[in-house]
Amino acid sequence: MTGKVADTSLADAGRISFEWAKSRMPIIDKIAKKKKPLDGVRLGICLHVTKETSVLVMAAKKLGARISLCSANPLSAQNDIAAFLYSQGIDVYAWQGQTIPEYRRCIRDVLGSRPSIIVDDGGDLHLAAHRTAAGGIIGGTEETTSGVKRLMALEKSGRLAYPVIAVNNAKTKHLFDNRYGTGQSTIDGILRSTGILLAGLRVVVCGYGWVGKGVSARARGMGAVVTVTEVDSVRALEAKMDGFEVKHLSDAAVSADLFITCTGQTAVIRKEHIASMKDGAILANAGHFDVEIDVSYLYSNKHVLVRPNLERFEIDGKKIYLIAKGRVANLVCAEGNPPEVMALSFANQLLCILQIAENPVMPVKVHGVSQSIDQAVAEYALDQLGIEIDSLTEKQKKYQQS
Amino acid sequence: MTGKVADTSLADAGRISFEWAKSRMPIIDKIAKKKKPLDGVRLGICLHVTKETSVLVMAAKKLGARISLCSANPLSAQNDIAAFLYSQGIDVYAWQGQTIPEYRRCIRDVLGSRPSIIVDDGGDLHLAAHRTAAGGIIGGTEETTSGVKRLMALEKSGRLAYPVIAVNNAKTKHLFDNRYGTGQSTIDGILRSTGILLAGLRVVVCGYGWVGKGVSARARGMGAVVTVTEVDSVRALEAKMDGFEVKHLSDAAVSADLFITCTGQTAVIRKEHIASMKDGAILANAGHFDVEIDVSYLYSNKHVLVRPNLERFEIDGKKIYLIAKGRVANLVCAEGNPPEVMALSFANQLLCILQIAENPVMPVKVHGVSQSIDQAVAEYALDQLGIEIDSLTEKQKKYQQS
Amino acid sequence: MTGKVADTSLADAGRISFEWAKSRMPIIDKIAKKKKPLDGVRLGICLHVTKETSVLVMAAKKLGARISLCSANPLSAQNDIAAFLYSQGIDVYAWQGQTIPEYRRCIRDVLGSRPSIIVDDGGDLHLAAHRTAAGGIIGGTEETTSGVKRLMALEKSGRLAYPVIAVNNAKTKHLFDNRYGTGQSTIDGILRSTGILLAGLRVVVCGYGWVGKGVSARARGMGAVVTVTEVDSVRALEAKMDGFEVKHLSDAAVSADLFITCTGQTAVIRKEHIASMKDGAILANAGHFDVEIDVSYLYSNKHVLVRPNLERFEIDGKKIYLIAKGRVANLVCAEGNPPEVMALSFANQLLCILQIAENPVMPVKVHGVSQSIDQAVAEYALDQLGIEIDSLTEKQKKYQQS
Amino acid sequence: MTGKVADTSLADAGRISFEWAKSRMPIIDKIAKKKKPLDGVRLGICLHVTKETSVLVMAAKKLGARISLCSANPLSAQNDIAAFLYSQGIDVYAWQGQTIPEYRRCIRDVLGSRPSIIVDDGGDLHLAAHRTAAGGIIGGTEETTSGVKRLMALEKSGRLAYPVIAVNNAKTKHLFDNRYGTGQSTIDGILRSTGILLAGLRVVVCGYGWVGKGVSARARGMGAVVTVTEVDSVRALEAKMDGFEVKHLSDAAVSADLFITCTGQTAVIRKEHIASMKDGAILANAGHFDVEIDVSYLYSNKHVLVRPNLERFEIDGKKIYLIAKGRVANLVCAEGNPPEVMALSFANQLLCILQIAENPVMPVKVHGVSQSIDQAVAEYALDQLGIEIDSLTEKQKKYQQS
Repeated sequence: MTGKVADTSLADAGRISFEWAKSRMPIIDKIAKKKKPLDGVRLGICLHVTKETSVLVMAAKKLGARISLCSANPLSAQNDIAAFLYSQGIDVYAWQGQTIPEYRRCIRDVLGSRPSIIVDDGGDLHLAAHRTAAGGIIGGTEETTSGVKRLMALEKSGRLAYPVIAVNNAKTKHLFDNRYGTGQSTIDGILRSTGILLAGLRVVVCGYGWVGKGVSARARGMGAVVTVTEVDSVRALEAKMDGFEVKHLSDAAVSADLFITCTGQTAVIRKEHIASMKDGAILANAGHFDVEIDVSYLYSNKHVLVRPNLERFEIDGKKIYLIAKGRVANLVCAEGNPPEVMALSFANQLLCILQIAENPVMPVKVHGVSQSIDQAVAEYALDQLGIEIDSLTEKQKKYQQS
Repeated sequence: MTGKVADTSLADAGRISFEWAKSRMPIIDKIAKKKKPLDGVRLGICLHVTKETSVLVMAAKKLGARISLCSANPLSAQNDIAAFLYSQGIDVYAWQGQTIPEYRRCIRDVLGSRPSIIVDDGGDLHLAAHRTAAGGIIGGTEETTSGVKRLMALEKSGRLAYPVIAVNNAKTKHLFDNRYGTGQSTIDGILRSTGILLAGLRVVVCGYGWVGKGVSARARGMGAVVTVTEVDSVRALEAKMDGFEVKHLSDAAVSADLFITCTGQTAVIRKEHIASMKDGAILANAGHFDVEIDVSYLYSNKHVLVRPNLERFEIDGKKIYLIAKGRVANLVCAEGNPPEVMALSFANQLLCILQIAENPVMPVKVHGVSQSIDQAVAEYALDQLGIEIDSLTEKQKKYQQS
Repeated sequence: MTGKVADTSLADAGRISFEWAKSRMPIIDKIAKKKKPLDGVRLGICLHVTKETSVLVMAAKKLGARISLCSANPLSAQNDIAAFLYSQGIDVYAWQGQTIPEYRRCIRDVLGSRPSIIVDDGGDLHLAAHRTAAGGIIGGTEETTSGVKRLMALEKSGRLAYPVIAVNNAKTKHLFDNRYGTGQSTIDGILRSTGILLAGLRVVVCGYGWVGKGVSARARGMGAVVTVTEVDSVRALEAKMDGFEVKHLSDAAVSADLFITCTGQTAVIRKEHIASMKDGAILANAGHFDVEIDVSYLYSNKHVLVRPNLERFEIDGKKIYLIAKGRVANLVCAEGNPPEVMALSFANQLLCILQIAENPVMPVKVHGVSQSIDQAVAEYALDQLGIEIDSLTEKQKKYQQS
Repeated sequence: MTGKVADTSLADAGRISFEWAKSRMPIIDKIAKKKKPLDGVRLGICLHVTKETSVLVMAAKKLGARISLCSANPLSAQNDIAAFLYSQGIDVYAWQGQTIPEYRRCIRDVLGSRPSIIVDDGGDLHLAAHRTAAGGIIGGTEETTSGVKRLMALEKSGRLAYPVIAVNNAKTKHLFDNRYGTGQSTIDGILRSTGILLAGLRVVVCGYGWVGKGVSARARGMGAVVTVTEVDSVRALEAKMDGFEVKHLSDAAVSADLFITCTGQTAVIRKEHIASMKDGAILANAGHFDVEIDVSYLYSNKHVLVRPNLERFEIDGKKIYLIAKGRVANLVCAEGNPPEVMALSFANQLLCILQIAENPVMPVKVHGVSQSIDQAVAEYALDQLGIEIDSLTEKQKKYQQS
């Protein structure tokens, strides 16, 4: 066993955190109760090293896999979780606060273990595998949209070396994690960083995709008056029919107290919008990258840290506040998506890993998650919740086909 | 000019009703302000002859079309609207309470006017056109899922005679009319037929598709405690995460006060469910056909009319109530979808008719609504609502493509 | 037996309507299952002669009372209910569309029956009793705030002749009927009279008392964007914290689609507000009297009936719509408060009548409803709903007193 | 200047925290902009030494008062705030983690400064003042219900030595802080301590007073399915009509995921309830004292700390979780009521202090907050929110009095 973690003495703290997450993710455990179909499989995993990831990793271990693990982001590894997994015999190459060269070195270390299946979040491990020897790899999975995009480019140019399943495409992932997970955890992050009262607050939500829908619903659920901005007219109409005001951002900016960007776009809140905001306005970003708010403009002004993750800028005699430097608020200020939602994503991951291990001759392309896996995940989740649902009668099956 | 209506003296009453609908559907008017691209076109239209339809028909007339109109259902024509349209020079073959032979005769009369474009709701006019001379027909549109299904069967068997656009597929139709339109109008129909208090009422919604989502949201909005039943596990999980209890219908039946079927399926509420219901339970159907509740079983019991559209059945010493004989409650007890929602559907209809008239050489198949029409309808709707939205900057367009 | 109704042949229709209401008001029946404590009591009742009132009247009869009944409003009696009650041996003096002299005559007829207990809604019967011989009267009840106000004036001037219980003051009346009852039935009345889509509609609710709170909550529950206007700063702050925008009516008037007055005040929506409304604005009143909207100004303009209970006014080139001539929308366009809510009010009535009959020596003043009656009504209601609640343990009782 | 704080070097950190709170509480500043009516007044203040309290204290100082400050609880003082206030010339006797003797000593120190007005939270300072020399004291205020109760007892026994205003009674305090403040901050505390997904969670809220109403509304707003338990039948009926299920706690206990006590009562969740809970159930308390959950029973079982403020108990083979040792979750796990809500309470405090200073001859009794102060606080709050409301016209004033 090899690996590198920050402090092995944190293993016990990590174990308690792992156990808490495990208790909220019983789906993963249920899947892992199948007999050992991963014997002889070596997984190379590049995911955020969090308590939820430790549940997935330990389940894969229980299924017989040997595992090398690195972190999907130089900043996102939790040292106690890394220590715990290391103590359990996982080859962990992860610690909080890596330099970029260290981050790359860890990816190479994972590939050095000669994994047969690659599990990635963002595509860095897949791309590194393609640059070096992808020889023994029989397939892989990818958690994110942006990673899938990079793999599609590889496929298009004829250079994809093994089949990959795009876990993000599963209904039980994208219909749930953005709306219910990010919706809640963004509100959570805003409360932890500011402590302000949401009741009666004027909130502008930029973007009405799944994240925007979730954030809008939860902000309203806490008593806020929400206005939505959009560039897509169908989504704008949907927001209106859902009972939100819809406006130009420049019009909404004048009277709002809090702005939350959920667009996946760049340069959404710009200097001209900030210029028209009122004194005391607060800016937060719920999107994956820190490009939605023009932070470079903000930092060109005088600023001071008010509380953890909250900075105040002096602009034209007004005070403007920024949460988490414009980085994704739910991960930086709170704990990212709750374990119950990660359980759905990782159940898809685990079933896709099993599918690859059992079907070593899948076509070399980017696959969607099969409907049967998607369905199975939903069934596991309902079962965990103690919910039983109806089935079609024979008569109804016939009616459906008529 | 030819035609047959019940009573031409109702034209003035019909005009006032038309004007009210028109005031709620300004999108249609805006589209009709284009110059006359329908000169020389004859439309054969088979739609429910309602105030909303009269707005579409008058707009098509304004655009230069000559029009023959019959009713999409023997029972759904409103005599005052028929009289009004007839008074305006439309060849109307429609009255309330037709026999089936009369209904068929009216369809033949419309085809006898040699239309070049067919506008249908349900497929009866399209199928009749295919049985007789479809010679001069250059294309058609179809409003409903069930009509589209019949046309797809024609296409599959190689017998489709002209291109048809499936209006139902437009996002600005199916995302809006079921959720917001039927959601509201089903509650409306239940209130008109029963007058009961919804606050605190235990409501079971069968099915969590768009109609079920809409009905659940509005029932909760009126203070009801909603439980959802489903056969699809992903939808069931979605209902749960939206904050509804999800159960077997047989379990939910025991304590519920009101049941609303929204499944599109047959035999959903059956004798065994009714047997376990409590005294006073009320049954309603929001689905298109009257097959979701086992009405033949109900009518085998002693029954009496309590109020318009509300019957009481004596079953095993209990009183069970049925709304509108199990027919679609929003149309029978209220006024169907509100005009603002029909405006979206009919804006798609009108733009599709214009597309066919301007592109007489479309491939002979069932087409979806083009994204540009869908987008245009949403833009017209936002414009009518006085809502302006943002556009992508050049920088954002580039970012999106990177 | 004496009395006057419009058409005795309507008794059977009235019975069916009575039975429906009775099935939704089982509390009344439960109270009436006590043994006959009203033997020898004659009730003089002046209430709106509706299906709900018939349930109260029949329960009082079952308890042994003899009853004379007139209508609390010249326009509010339902002829079939009047006929049904008459057929049951009640002395009914009520029909739809009385003249004012007829209305007064009926009140005198009821007093002529020499009632010992007076049950009134508005105070007209009480005041008539005071003007004539109030000799044999041992007490009375009063349903409304406005009636209570008149009786308080009598008490203050030393002229009150018998004790009266102000039923309106019971928590189980005023906390429930305005918020849940009028909240729902006002939305119901607006839907029946207009048929418009509420989702996304901009609604202004004038007044944030119990009616305004109920109407705002239900309008939002149907997808509307609600703005509140108020003259009381504490209520205004409450509306804001509940997530509504709060504005001057003159500011809100500019962009709203629908206005609902819930203030109990006069001249709330005036010429200057109407002048700034947009084309197509709709006005409705949910307050008891038709004084909240300046209807005399509206009727000085050209107008036409668009649908039942909906008139259109041409004002400065705009179309403005008025529901139900500015009269209380839930009673005129729908069916007033739902029977489940009336059951709470009338349970208080019935228990207060019993209290008077059993305590013929109450002090001559305006009494509140006793806490024990209020509590009993809530307990009856929970029992009917099949709801059981916890009780304080001995330890908790002590803790409460410490 | 005298005083004792933990670490004067924390003053700068305290100032930044003070400034953030001040920016969220502009009402206090507005009131303090009156000219100096507190010259020569010495305030003895016993409040939780938090950032919000520092805003009140600094405002009183700006108004000319000299101030001695101790903490209302041995555990609730924040050392940085204490240091900041000390650096500003306030006589501060407060630090985190006092022993009971230290706590009492600090109270004596404050009284030793010979204050003329006493500002208290809980009554300890008032009672100490009565035990020692209350000679120069012209009046006081009391923030809490429990403190008011103790002062009423003093009044009743004829021993009250000076007039006291019960700030808690102001509408702008109790209508707002429990519902909107505690409602939000309890959810906040639960999220910080557990990180679980609330969407679809089955939550039991014990008690439907203002806190229970607020917690129920916010839990539902986050997607939870809420069941309410009550001992008062009117409140139980209100919860039902608000769309919540209402049950015996013993019935609700079986299937719930999370329990939140909001009763103000003792021994609400007991051994017998815990015995019927499912594996993984989580318990939290939102009430003032840690008596609502039977924690002594819980701690008689094996337990371990899972995360900060979350303990796991092994009971009969099940895992049961307890938040914050059963202490008030919003204060222990989050930051207590948000500053915007504290601003309302403290605006009442400040105006009451001014009233006492200006009216040195108030009757010696426990007074309510005058309606004019209540109204003024609401007006200040609306003004700060940029909200303007309507006023009664002359005609309306007359109508109101008629």
